[in-house]
Amino acid sequence: MSPRKATHQQTKIHNRDLVLKTIFDYETISRAEVARLTKLTRTTVSDMVASLLDEGLIEEVGFGESIGGKAPILLSLVADSRYLIGLNLAQDKFIGSVVNLRGEIKDTVEFPVNGCDGKQALQLVYKILDQLTKREWRPLVGIGIGTPGLVNTRAGVVVNAVNLDWQHLPLAHLLESRYNLPVTVLNDSQATAIGEFVYGSSYPSESNLVVITIKHGIGAGVLINGRLFQGDGGGAGEIGHVVVQENGTLCRCGQHGCLETISSAWAIVQRAISLAPEYDNSELAKNPENISLDAIVNAYQAGDPLAEKVVSDAAHYLGASIASLVGILNIQNIVLTGDMVRFGQMWLQSVRDAMNHAALTKMAQDTQLEFGTLEFKACILGASAFMLLENYSLLFTQTSE
Amino acid sequence: MSPRKATHQQTKIHNRDLVLKTIFDYETISRAEVARLTKLTRTTVSDMVASLLDEGLIEEVGFGESIGGKAPILLSLVADSRYLIGLNLAQDKFIGSVVNLRGEIKDTVEFPVNGCDGKQALQLVYKILDQLTKREWRPLVGIGIGTPGLVNTRAGVVVNAVNLDWQHLPLAHLLESRYNLPVTVLNDSQATAIGEFVYGSSYPSESNLVVITIKHGIGAGVLINGRLFQGDGGGAGEIGHVVVQENGTLCRCGQHGCLETISSAWAIVQRAISLAPEYDNSELAKNPENISLDAIVNAYQAGDPLAEKVVSDAAHYLGASIASLVGILNIQNIVLTGDMVRFGQMWLQSVRDAMNHAALTKMAQDTQLEFGTLEFKACILGASAFMLLENYSLLFTQTSE
Repeated sequence: MSPRKATHQQTKIHNRDLVLKTIFDYETISRAEVARLTKLTRTTVSDMVASLLDEGLIEEVGFGESIGGKAPILLSLVADSRYLIGLNLAQDKFIGSVVNLRGEIKDTVEFPVNGCDGKQALQLVYKILDQLTKREWRPLVGIGIGTPGLVNTRAGVVVNAVNLDWQHLPLAHLLESRYNLPVTVLNDSQATAIGEFVYGSSYPSESNLVVITIKHGIGAGVLINGRLFQGDGGGAGEIGHVVVQENGTLCRCGQHGCLETISSAWAIVQRAISLAPEYDNSELAKNPENISLDAIVNAYQAGDPLAEKVVSDAAHYLGASIASLVGILNIQNIVLTGDMVRFGQMWLQSVRDAMNHAALTKMAQDTQLEFGTLEFKACILGASAFMLLENYSLLFTQTSE
Repeated sequence: MSPRKATHQQTKIHNRDLVLKTIFDYETISRAEVARLTKLTRTTVSDMVASLLDEGLIEEVGFGESIGGKAPILLSLVADSRYLIGLNLAQDKFIGSVVNLRGEIKDTVEFPVNGCDGKQALQLVYKILDQLTKREWRPLVGIGIGTPGLVNTRAGVVVNAVNLDWQHLPLAHLLESRYNLPVTVLNDSQATAIGEFVYGSSYPSESNLVVITIKHGIGAGVLINGRLFQGDGGGAGEIGHVVVQENGTLCRCGQHGCLETISSAWAIVQRAISLAPEYDNSELAKNPENISLDAIVNAYQAGDPLAEKVVSDAAHYLGASIASLVGILNIQNIVLTGDMVRFGQMWLQSVRDAMNHAALTKMAQDTQLEFGTLEFKACILGASAFMLLENYSLLFTQTSE
C-alpha cells in the first residue's frame, strides 16, 4: 500500500464523514447547502451523498424552497438505520438502552446493583447486554459505556472505580470479544456531558461547555470546541476529589475533605444523620434512622433548619469549586445535573451565590449556571454518541475504496 | 468572486502554512520529509517550498544523508528574514524587544513604570515602540503585547487592567494606526505560557501545558493540543482572583481572600510586614521598613521563621489551587514562573506537597511541576509567537494568488 493511496483514502473518508456530520446537524438539508457549509465542491458532495444513500444512512425526503432555479431535493438522516447501545453504570442500578442515530431511546433494560462489585458487577453488565443484543434492533453498530471512576478511553480500560472495585479492568476488550461489536468506555460524568451537549439544550457545534454531575459522587465533563477534553490521563473533570475542607470527612478516595464529602447527595444524607443530634428544632432530625435523600428534599422545601444547613453547605462548596473552574477555563455555559438538582432553584441560587462570591465579578456575571435537560439518559446518550462523533466509520457496512 | 475560487485559495494558504510550520519545527528538513509529515503530495510540497524560497523565508542549507537514492537537499528557516516586536507590560517596568523568527532577542528597550497609569502608561508603550520601530530591523511584520488584566484578544481590547487603570482600551487599534503594523494583545500570563511552550523546554507540538506566572499578581495560561485556550470571555487562566480564604485580605479586584492576596510576591511582602510584630525570633522582623522581596528571599534561605511562615502559606494555597486545576484539566505538565521561583526548590517542594495533599493521589502523582526556563522573556516571546501561530500570512509580502 503506497502512502499516497492511503492519503487519498483518508481524504475520502474525511469528506464522507464531514458530509454525514453536516446532515446530522440539520433536520433536512440540500446538497447545495451541504457544499456551502463543508466548503467541499458540489461534485464531491454529490458523490458522498450517493454513497450515504446507498448505505441507507440518509434519504431524500422532498423538496425545499426554490431560490430561483429548480427546487432543491432535501436530504435527511434515517434515524433508525443503525442502532447503538448505551450503558449507564449508576450507583444504585445499571441501565442499558438501545439508541437510534437521533438519540431516541428504543428499548431499555435495567437491574439494581444491590452493592455488588468486582466480577459480579461485570456479570450484571453482561446480563444487560446479553438481553439487549438479542432483541430485534438491527444493525447494532457499537456499545458505549459510561462508568464511574478513572478511565483510559483510548485503551478501553477502567483504571480505578472504587465503588465497583474495578482496577485496570479491560472492559472494552472483554465486551468486544463477547459481543463482536466496537466498544467505547468513558467516565460517566464525561459521557453525561456529551449527552447534554449533543442532545440537551442546543449548543453551537463548536462551542465550549462544562457539565457537572452531582449524585452519589461528583464529576464533570469538559467540552472544548465541541469535543470532549479528557486531559493527559483521562481524568479531566474529576473535581469531586479535590480537597475543599482541611481536616474534613474521610473520602472513599483516601483523602479527607474532598468536594464529594460535603456537596454530593451521599454527603448530605451522611451529614444530616450526624448533625441531627444538634438540631432540636428540626422535624427531619427527630428520626435520624429515616433520613434519606427523599426526606431531605421534602424537609428542605418545608424550610427545615437541618436540611437547610446541609444543603446550603453543599451548595457553598460546590459554588466555590465552580468559581475555580470559571477562573481556569472561563467557559460561560455550565450545566448541573444529577440527584442534587432535586433541590431545585433555591439550591441552584445558593450555588450561584457561592460562585459569585468566589470568582472574579466580571467572569462570574458572564457565566450561566443551568440545569441539564436529560437526567440519567444523558449518560446513556453521551456514551453512545461519543462513539459516533469520534468514529463515523462504524456506521458503514463496507470500507470505502 | 466565486465561493469555489475562495476555497482553492484557502486550501493553498492552508497548505503553505502547514509546510512552513513543519519547516519551523525542525532545524533542517528535506522536501520528502515535509511531504511525509504533512501528508501533502510531493508536488504540492515542492510548489509551496518554491514560494517560501521566493519569499526568502527559508533557504537550502546543504544535503542530508541519502537513504538509497540521491542525497536530499535540506531546507531551513531563515531566522532573520522577518522581525516581530514583543512587549511585556510588567508591574515595575515595560520591556519591548525585537525578536526574529527563531525567538532570538535582537534588541531591547525598557523603561521603569514608576506607578504611572492610564494615558501615561500608554505613552510609555508608544515611547518603547517609537524607538524599536525606528531601528534597523527590517522587515518588521507585527507587534505582540502581553499586558496584565482581562483582554479581548479578538477585538484587541484591554477590557480591564486594574494596575494600569485601563478599561476598554482599544490597544491594538491605537497601535495599528500609529505604526501601520498588525498588533495582537494578549493577557501577560497567557503570552508567557505560549513563550514557554514554543521556546522553553521541548514539548510535542500538539501537547497540553499549563504555565502559572506568580509575580506581583498570579495568572495562568492553558495550552490545549498546542493552542492557547482563552475561554469564552478571554479570561481562561485567571486563577489569581479565585477566592481561597474566607474573610481574607482585600484584593485589588474588590473581593476578599483571592489567591493573589496570599500566594503572590506582593502578598508575601505585605504579610511579612503585617506579621512582623508577632515574630520576636525573626531577624527579618526586626526592621519591618526594610522588608522587600529580596530581603524575604535571603531570610527564607537562612531559615528565618517569619520568612518561612509567609512563604509556606503562599505555597500551601498555590498548591491547593493547582490541585483544583489538576482535577479540572488533568494536564500533566505544569510550569511555574515569575518572581516567586526565586524561593527555589524548597518552595517548589512545598507547592508540590500542598498539591499532593489536595488532589486525587493518582492524578497528582502523574503531574510534573517544574520551573519555566525563560523568565521575563517568555512573555515577550509568547506575545510575538502568538501572532505567527495564529496567522502566518503576516510573514508574506504578497498575497498568494
